Amino acid sequence: MSYFRKNIEAAQGYTPGEQPQDGSYVKLNTNENPYPPSPKVVEAIRRAAGDRLRKYPDPVANEARETIAALFDVGRENVLCGNGSDDLLSIAVRAFVDPGQAIATPDPTYSLYETLARLQDARLEEHPSGDDFAAPVGALAGSSAPLVIAANPNAPTGVPVATADLQRIARGIKGVLLVDEAYVDFADADAMELARGEPNVLVMRTLSKSYSLAGLRFGFMVGPRELIDGLMKVKDSYNCDLLSIVAAQAALEDQQWMRANVGKIRSERSRLTEALRGLGFTVLESQANFVLARPADGDARHIYEQLKARGVLVRYFNRPRIDQFVRITVGTPDEVGRLLQEIERLGSG
Amino acid sequence: MSYFRKNIEAAQGYTPGEQPQDGSYVKLNTNENPYPPSPKVVEAIRRAAGDRLRKYPDPVANEARETIAALFDVGRENVLCGNGSDDLLSIAVRAFVDPGQAIATPDPTYSLYETLARLQDARLEEHPSGDDFAAPVGALAGSSAPLVIAANPNAPTGVPVATADLQRIARGIKGVLLVDEAYVDFADADAMELARGEPNVLVMRTLSKSYSLAGLRFGFMVGPRELIDGLMKVKDSYNCDLLSIVAAQAALEDQQWMRANVGKIRSERSRLTEALRGLGFTVLESQANFVLARPADGDARHIYEQLKARGVLVRYFNRPRIDQFVRITVGTPDEVGRLLQEIERLGSG
Repeated sequence: MSYFRKNIEAAQGYTPGEQPQDGSYVKLNTNENPYPPSPKVVEAIRRAAGDRLRKYPDPVANEARETIAALFDVGRENVLCGNGSDDLLSIAVRAFVDPGQAIATPDPTYSLYETLARLQDARLEEHPSGDDFAAPVGALAGSSAPLVIAANPNAPTGVPVATADLQRIARGIKGVLLVDEAYVDFADADAMELARGEPNVLVMRTLSKSYSLAGLRFGFMVGPRELIDGLMKVKDSYNCDLLSIVAAQAALEDQQWMRANVGKIRSERSRLTEALRGLGFTVLESQANFVLARPADGDARHIYEQLKARGVLVRYFNRPRIDQFVRITVGTPDEVGRLLQEIERLGSG
Repeated sequence: MSYFRKNIEAAQGYTPGEQPQDGSYVKLNTNENPYPPSPKVVEAIRRAAGDRLRKYPDPVANEARETIAALFDVGRENVLCGNGSDDLLSIAVRAFVDPGQAIATPDPTYSLYETLARLQDARLEEHPSGDDFAAPVGALAGSSAPLVIAANPNAPTGVPVATADLQRIARGIKGVLLVDEAYVDFADADAMELARGEPNVLVMRTLSKSYSLAGLRFGFMVGPRELIDGLMKVKDSYNCDLLSIVAAQAALEDQQWMRANVGKIRSERSRLTEALRGLGFTVLESQANFVLARPADGDARHIYEQLKARGVLVRYFNRPRIDQFVRITVGTPDEVGRLLQEIERLGSG
């Protein structure tokens, strides 16, 4: 006998990438930014750390909402802040999807979406991407699921979805389209205009990647007021803590810092892509801060294990379609150099 | 037509107490601690605020778990950390309660439990407390709900539940008993031994009240490993941020600081209780950091409004059984003095 619901008993839970806490690895496995957060973020946290902590934060994080609203030319009523994108995804699933219903996604995509479907006792309706991993736009646009989630660019492929394609999906479906733009600051284009123009589109961002704040847990959604108001009812009363609110504000106000780091990562992404191709890998053209790369023999697990044994962590997914690839986060030039060196040694070993 | 689930469309959402951000009120409405957090907490946050923020935190917050485990003489596998108690309550509801099922609670109690039931499309099964607001032990022990939640001491009454009574409930039910001990550090006794001895009891604590860290959002549950393991599957991958993990550790390690503040609040609670009785109020004997008090004429809303107009915030609940009471957080001697002065003026006005 179990105290748990059947769907929870059967669920595996999401498996996050390895997070060794000892700092001994070159860590290219969880898409963290290799550059530190803005000094203004650190300053804001240090300033807020004191007596103010004894009081509850603003339940809806209005100061951060206003910063976000100004940045994306919307009203603060169009913004919902969350304890990382994870929190916002869970809120959206619980708000829109009844048990037994479906969440539609492309396949492959971020595996957390499937975990969230199971926790809601819902189904995942997966639509296969093309051979080039392009989004299955027609299939998604024809879905009758109450929630469609499309990552732009997609994870773990790095392949973007054109705004016109996302619009086509939004206008085809009867439910809500959630565009997960966790990695979009590393891309050439974004779909934020859909959050301003379509009645059923939510665009989600996170500070974990481009703003170097994975440790902080802050994400936000932009969309029509009617959707944001309803999602507000589902979120925890105080889902964002004081320190993350002040830090998020400071981070978002320092666009220059974020853009400079993104610039460095984008050029290193080109170098990494070319170098891996030179070593015989097939590498998808990525618009994110990682690349998905297939070794010539397709034995990605071997590459993952051998690199780990040599102190370099990359990500291996034992899942159909992508089990011959490793996902490699774009690090500093030194980190990428070390990775390439170890791969060359493996090849000649 | 709505994009939302029917139960979400119908839900009101939880209404937190007013959180004016301008600091102009004597704020005795949301049970915050009037004393600052430990200087060691502030130090820990300032130390962690830097480059480490760019990496994800430990997904299960093991360092904080170990501190908690040592404090309560359990293993770290018996501990689950959350983004405040709110997060943990939501995890428990989603883990144990199918839509259509019930959450059993005493009535009155913390109104968030009802909100969580609605968000899960579940029912609240309310068992009336006695005239003295004592827990309806027999009724709860006979409940067939998969989840029973009992706050100890109860909110907003401050009335404790004896450990033997909680044990009787745990042994009577087929589901899980969650004992919400948000306020228990202000009480004479706690029920943590049940989390160590019973297969179906979870005891929940928060740092928001006794540790002066409402702004931080950190709570934890202690219970049997089988329950903690299952709840782990439901929580967000990284539900606790780096700063809250290091701060929680520092706070929990400084028991002396917390105990000193609790001592001051307990003596002020006695003074407030006596003084209000002297002014004609009926005041429940509270084991929390607030008192529930009924003015002689029962017009609690009037007291709330008049105090607010005079710059003192207390809490008024427009709900059966407690709508003739105001809930007053125990503040500093100065804050309590100001409150009493304003009440006296009202009486003679």
